[in-house]
Amino acid sequence: MADTKKRSLDSDNGTESGPEKKLATGDGDGKDAKQPVADPGSEAGSMLAGFQTEKIMRESSREKNIFIHGKMGSGPNEGQDAVLILEKTPFREDSLAELFKTSELKHQMRNDIYSTYHMHPPAHLNDIKATVVCPATEKHIKKYQSQELFLIQESGEDYRNITLPYIQEQSFSVQWVYNILEKKAEADRIVFEDPDPQNGFVLLPDFKWDQKQLDDLYLIAICHQREIKSLRDLTQEHLPLLQNIQQQGQEAIMKRYSVPSCRLRVYLHYQPSYYHLHVHFTVLGYEAPGCGVERAHLLSDVIQNLQTDTQHYRTRTLTYPLRADDALLHKLREAGRF
Amino acid sequence: MADTKKRSLDSDNGTESGPEKKLATGDGDGKDAKQPVADPGSEAGSMLAGFQTEKIMRESSREKNIFIHGKMGSGPNEGQDAVLILEKTPFREDSLAELFKTSELKHQMRNDIYSTYHMHPPAHLNDIKATVVCPATEKHIKKYQSQELFLIQESGEDYRNITLPYIQEQSFSVQWVYNILEKKAEADRIVFEDPDPQNGFVLLPDFKWDQKQLDDLYLIAICHQREIKSLRDLTQEHLPLLQNIQQQGQEAIMKRYSVPSCRLRVYLHYQPSYYHLHVHFTVLGYEAPGCGVERAHLLSDVIQNLQTDTQHYRTRTLTYPLRADDALLHKLREAGRF
Repeated sequence: MADTKKRSLDSDNGTESGPEKKLATGDGDGKDAKQPVADPGSEAGSMLAGFQTEKIMRESSREKNIFIHGKMGSGPNEGQDAVLILEKTPFREDSLAELFKTSELKHQMRNDIYSTYHMHPPAHLNDIKATVVCPATEKHIKKYQSQELFLIQESGEDYRNITLPYIQEQSFSVQWVYNILEKKAEADRIVFEDPDPQNGFVLLPDFKWDQKQLDDLYLIAICHQREIKSLRDLTQEHLPLLQNIQQQGQEAIMKRYSVPSCRLRVYLHYQPSYYHLHVHFTVLGYEAPGCGVERAHLLSDVIQNLQTDTQHYRTRTLTYPLRADDALLHKLREAGRF
Repeated sequence: MADTKKRSLDSDNGTESGPEKKLATGDGDGKDAKQPVADPGSEAGSMLAGFQTEKIMRESSREKNIFIHGKMGSGPNEGQDAVLILEKTPFREDSLAELFKTSELKHQMRNDIYSTYHMHPPAHLNDIKATVVCPATEKHIKKYQSQELFLIQESGEDYRNITLPYIQEQSFSVQWVYNILEKKAEADRIVFEDPDPQNGFVLLPDFKWDQKQLDDLYLIAICHQREIKSLRDLTQEHLPLLQNIQQQGQEAIMKRYSVPSCRLRVYLHYQPSYYHLHVHFTVLGYEAPGCGVERAHLLSDVIQNLQTDTQHYRTRTLTYPLRADDALLHKLREAGRF
């Protein structure tokens, strides 16, 4: 259990639809890819015709995809375990005219100038991208499985009685954070540093950001102070630190990437992924995983809350999501708090 | 400009790819909704057959939707400007077996255990949700055009001096809201109602949700009181209303959809899409547009904030995103506040 809280490399959004929203391609258990790419367009006939669904592992209504565990019904892999991923394809501008001309249209509702319809295009204008992972091992199957999420209402007392002892028991390692702060790792990735031990911090790109374009800009500020586990530890004495991170973090991003502060969403997570205070900087318009209201706290709000009441984060009931398999959820349940 | 703030039908997430990704329904420039809801499923024939595309205003590969400005080719609105919004629908579990059996499959590539295919289901298994706004004015068209976003820090004073006068000047129509509250429109869509004029509300599915699956569940509670424009108007006297919406809204959703409160994200928007108090209920795990920390305020936090300080939302600096073409942004800029 010691490593359930970790640095997030991929979509660490705590949402059901995609803690690991990725499709691995090409890492078939470490074997090399031996088969050549087949002729595109060759008929695969009814290869999926007898596919037996065992379980829907994940689906996203927003992204129009679905992850299914099942068994192949025919072909060379008949009866073998498979993960089947279906995703509807984006609209193509070059086929819109044909789409309008050839689709069936059913009226659904009308209210003033607004009407809705069901539209049914012919088969050849409907493309679904299907990906098959077969044979799929237990590991593959587990990887695509989504976990249900539950919203927790944690009072200040719950924190002291349940969450804090849990964090202390687990003694999650943040050695990788210390490695960064001490320049033992990733020194070349640092975008900005204020070395002050009290109010200083290191700013570096988050691993989710490949730095190839600005529209998913994502940086993390990690403070030098080592005693602040999370939002729950913050009081007015930390205001200079927080204001410094906000101010200098924004300036450094403007200087390096020419993205002004009015284009930046600056926030903390609660629960965080790791218990050493850090602040997220993402660009507005990028729906970064974890920027949802149920987990993110704007730094500007945190500062205002502390200015009003130094005990704010010690006393408030805080809301956050936990996955069904999170050990903290079990602790809260044991304590009758969920 | 009088109707740039409107009911949201589609992704209303305040992001650049869709700052006001919403489709107003029901507020036809202040006119009453006179048309009755048509028989669901009645044939609309080839109403879109001659649709002439003028411009793709926005599209999302992630969400598989497209916003098109064009002219109606036939029907009563022939030649009139329209906004056409197409969105592919999520996969339906109950039709998967038929999908496997009846789809055409074309092999695309194979690499070790990973294979990809193009899948072409028959027309009746392909549903596209089409929404038509017609006749569409210049304003409607502008509204769907994607725009850059800016983060605003609005103090209580800014609200009183700039934002409030702006809202009052514009006198945005919420006639479509009154149509719902008075049962003149959409009465058949109401999931729950508490008719109390002070603390009562109407709960109905948001237009973004097609109600075919629970993983993008999205409902809206609209209060009967007509004097509350937004979060900024709330004081302790509204606590009974807010607690009632939270309590009864959650219970009604549990009763109708069997989704418990620990699976629900309950929040308000600031700025809202329309200035009549309403509360969003979305299911956890669904990254609903507009649930980002820069625009959403958890109802449970709103209640706590008011319990602590009745003046909270009158005095606090609130952060929110505005599109580059938003008239309010220009007002704030004129006043030197941005």
